[in-house]
Amino acid sequence: MWKPDRNSKKTLYEQIADYLEQRISYGEFPPGSLLPPERKLAEQFDVNRSTVISAFAELRSMGIIESRIGSGTRVSTSKWGATPKHTPNWSRFAEGGSFLPNLPFLRRIREALTHNPTLIDFASGELSADLAPTNEIAVLMGKNAYTSYLGYVNPQGATPLREALVDYLNNYRGIRTTESSILITSGSQQSLFLITQCLLSPGDAVAIEDPSYCYSLPMFQSAGLRLFRLPVDKHGVQPEDIRTLYKKHRIKMVFLNPNYQNPTGALLSEERRKRLLDIISELGLPVVEDDPYSLTSYDGIPPLSLKSMDTTGSVLYIGSFSKIAASGLRIGWMVAPRSIVERLADARQQMDFGLSIIPQQVAGQFLQSDYFGPHLERLRIQLQFKRDLLIESLEKELSGLIEYVVPAGGIHFWCKLIPSIPDGILLEESIKKGIVMVPGSVYGSDSGYVRFTFARAKSEEIALGISRFAEALRGLIE
Amino acid sequence: MWKPDRNSKKTLYEQIADYLEQRISYGEFPPGSLLPPERKLAEQFDVNRSTVISAFAELRSMGIIESRIGSGTRVSTSKWGATPKHTPNWSRFAEGGSFLPNLPFLRRIREALTHNPTLIDFASGELSADLAPTNEIAVLMGKNAYTSYLGYVNPQGATPLREALVDYLNNYRGIRTTESSILITSGSQQSLFLITQCLLSPGDAVAIEDPSYCYSLPMFQSAGLRLFRLPVDKHGVQPEDIRTLYKKHRIKMVFLNPNYQNPTGALLSEERRKRLLDIISELGLPVVEDDPYSLTSYDGIPPLSLKSMDTTGSVLYIGSFSKIAASGLRIGWMVAPRSIVERLADARQQMDFGLSIIPQQVAGQFLQSDYFGPHLERLRIQLQFKRDLLIESLEKELSGLIEYVVPAGGIHFWCKLIPSIPDGILLEESIKKGIVMVPGSVYGSDSGYVRFTFARAKSEEIALGISRFAEALRGLIE
Repeated sequence: MWKPDRNSKKTLYEQIADYLEQRISYGEFPPGSLLPPERKLAEQFDVNRSTVISAFAELRSMGIIESRIGSGTRVSTSKWGATPKHTPNWSRFAEGGSFLPNLPFLRRIREALTHNPTLIDFASGELSADLAPTNEIAVLMGKNAYTSYLGYVNPQGATPLREALVDYLNNYRGIRTTESSILITSGSQQSLFLITQCLLSPGDAVAIEDPSYCYSLPMFQSAGLRLFRLPVDKHGVQPEDIRTLYKKHRIKMVFLNPNYQNPTGALLSEERRKRLLDIISELGLPVVEDDPYSLTSYDGIPPLSLKSMDTTGSVLYIGSFSKIAASGLRIGWMVAPRSIVERLADARQQMDFGLSIIPQQVAGQFLQSDYFGPHLERLRIQLQFKRDLLIESLEKELSGLIEYVVPAGGIHFWCKLIPSIPDGILLEESIKKGIVMVPGSVYGSDSGYVRFTFARAKSEEIALGISRFAEALRGLIE
Repeated sequence: MWKPDRNSKKTLYEQIADYLEQRISYGEFPPGSLLPPERKLAEQFDVNRSTVISAFAELRSMGIIESRIGSGTRVSTSKWGATPKHTPNWSRFAEGGSFLPNLPFLRRIREALTHNPTLIDFASGELSADLAPTNEIAVLMGKNAYTSYLGYVNPQGATPLREALVDYLNNYRGIRTTESSILITSGSQQSLFLITQCLLSPGDAVAIEDPSYCYSLPMFQSAGLRLFRLPVDKHGVQPEDIRTLYKKHRIKMVFLNPNYQNPTGALLSEERRKRLLDIISELGLPVVEDDPYSLTSYDGIPPLSLKSMDTTGSVLYIGSFSKIAASGLRIGWMVAPRSIVERLADARQQMDFGLSIIPQQVAGQFLQSDYFGPHLERLRIQLQFKRDLLIESLEKELSGLIEYVVPAGGIHFWCKLIPSIPDGILLEESIKKGIVMVPGSVYGSDSGYVRFTFARAKSEEIALGISRFAEALRGLIE
């Protein structure tokens, strides 16, 4: 990200004016478009707001931009768009489309993290650099640079990776399958996207957990689905609620995250799993089992997958490398009946023509290497350590103000705040103090919950992050 | 793909019966689902149809499958789905969804290529192994194994690649831009998908070329767009036709592939480019310029991009590595106003959470390496050589039966057949003789055209492929 050079002979405001003029001339801000507010630019360029105001004045005097009170600063149409030429109304296009933008809180969090990399991050659902097997993967890549044909891959994904996953699924998740029933996807996210776009139709009713990360994904609304909720307690959802929703709303599919659920950390009990499978097979109802966290089980014994207990072929199983190895690899997988795998692979060809072959090779090699088992063991120990640091800090800083259930695996910590603070205000105050977390309403819960993800922050940041959060919270109570 | 072992002690039909039983038990074919027809399985397993019939009989006798005359063979529900348990009606789910399946001809071609890798491939729009910079990329990967943090990437794509593209776009395409106006995508395909999903609404009218590869992409119909046609002659579209469509149908966007168009190979003339830009800026109409082939220009002088001549910020520019380096990298890019880049990056986060970091690193390094220029030069020479081989073979085999315009760049050869043969019959006969091409109707043209893509086949296969095609064609005429 560009910043003015403090050692330059040119003043800061002149540099900023030159820079903005260049970007306008490149078409980044077309004639008539709104420039970012002065406050934002000042933050981005690391200067006082008055410096940006001077740069704007300079550009205004040259006829390059126009400001109108109450409606911000825009690129001039007279200077750049010689009449009768017109620039498309890009902002109208950006607001159009049937695919919905992300939730405002999530966009705010992303923006805050982009502009201020020193924020302590309890929001991103990924592993910190030291938890990812970066060295192991670098060694594998160094030894096995990709040397085969770099053409389009099988629409279901690279065959060696699918073959490696057959073993992995059998050994680690008790799932017996074959490579032709596996679809490689760009993380769990793409599996969910394909299911919502290709297997369900606008108006269909589906059941999701409450709270649920599904609620944070406008893709469900973009697909025109009607969402009905299955409340989650510390043992997961109540299977009988599925029957109730089915009778009432004819739900077509159930989305579950049974192991160390996002955001609550709940583990669906074994007894409920059995009842759940009985009920869905009685109703002929498909279940999507999203299973990214099971191998983080702190006691080293991953819970059974629903898919491994599924005798009627009712479960679409989704897995991913994002939470157990590296989110930046973008490797996930789905196990499904062949007709479903073929339908989704066909649709995906139209959307992005499949995944790059290189990370698929890397992922397959890592799965089959001697690094994989020890990596998982180290990951489990480190995650438990981070969870304990988080609890220790929370107890120290906020004892009596919070309630929680300690998760036995996963990367999320769900916390009820006893004082009542509106979500938006708490988020802004937290950002000001230098930390981000995710307000619970993002997951469809009532106000007053917070999700702390403890995998992304470094161990040494956790205590500081929680003390900053406590400062923000206490400032709002007093 | 599994095949029975001809050296095994077990008979072929027993092996097939065992194999199918295993797959059924894994849930690949759930209770009640239809098995592939005997003919298809025989082709897949490389056995006589009678062998498959014996395997089916075996499975039937065990109660595992059920056949009913006229409705194929299904997995038994009585054996596998103990009453009152039900399997979801997966085939109904696979037929549902708002996102449409690919065109039947394209699915047929993919299926033929999957089952018979010895087919000579004039259908796939990609480079043969010897044209891709496989060694160069392997050297770069060997030298620079990825060692940085493998976390989620900037939603617009990895910054070093976007910075490398700023130079590339300036040097090779005359486009001045900045890294914040660039979105890295999974090939051009994903750029088009994002545009149709996020910038246009169901019912919107758009203009596409006629014939056009856009017509082959059901994503336009999936997004509910109404398509209107701009006829292409050997100098591309007629700019005035855009005004006509605008007046008549209020088209919202124009999709163009101006350089060595897919499928016709046409190059939009410079004079028409100027008029076109005048007309669209007069109407305030955005143009999507898909530009994957310009650097293959056989004379070494790539045509100007529309974007480089665009003074009103009306062009969304799309580029890709797929046709000039390697389709399996899955690296493309879009240059657009910042509001559009941000909107599309946000939506893409929801669909697949962005691209893997590794191929982005590789692509950036390749662009900035000393390999890139020489690779392009070699590619141009080789493509021209292949084009000439194709013309030579066509003239030898089909002189007087075909008409064509010789393309000056690109990878596609568009050929009118003087005899009138229905597209479907010609395709099936060609597959029988051992070649695949794409019937013209896939691109929305009248029957009687064929697209031969000459980049994918090896040089030494071209003459043989065309003689097989000629055999198929002549057999249908006589």
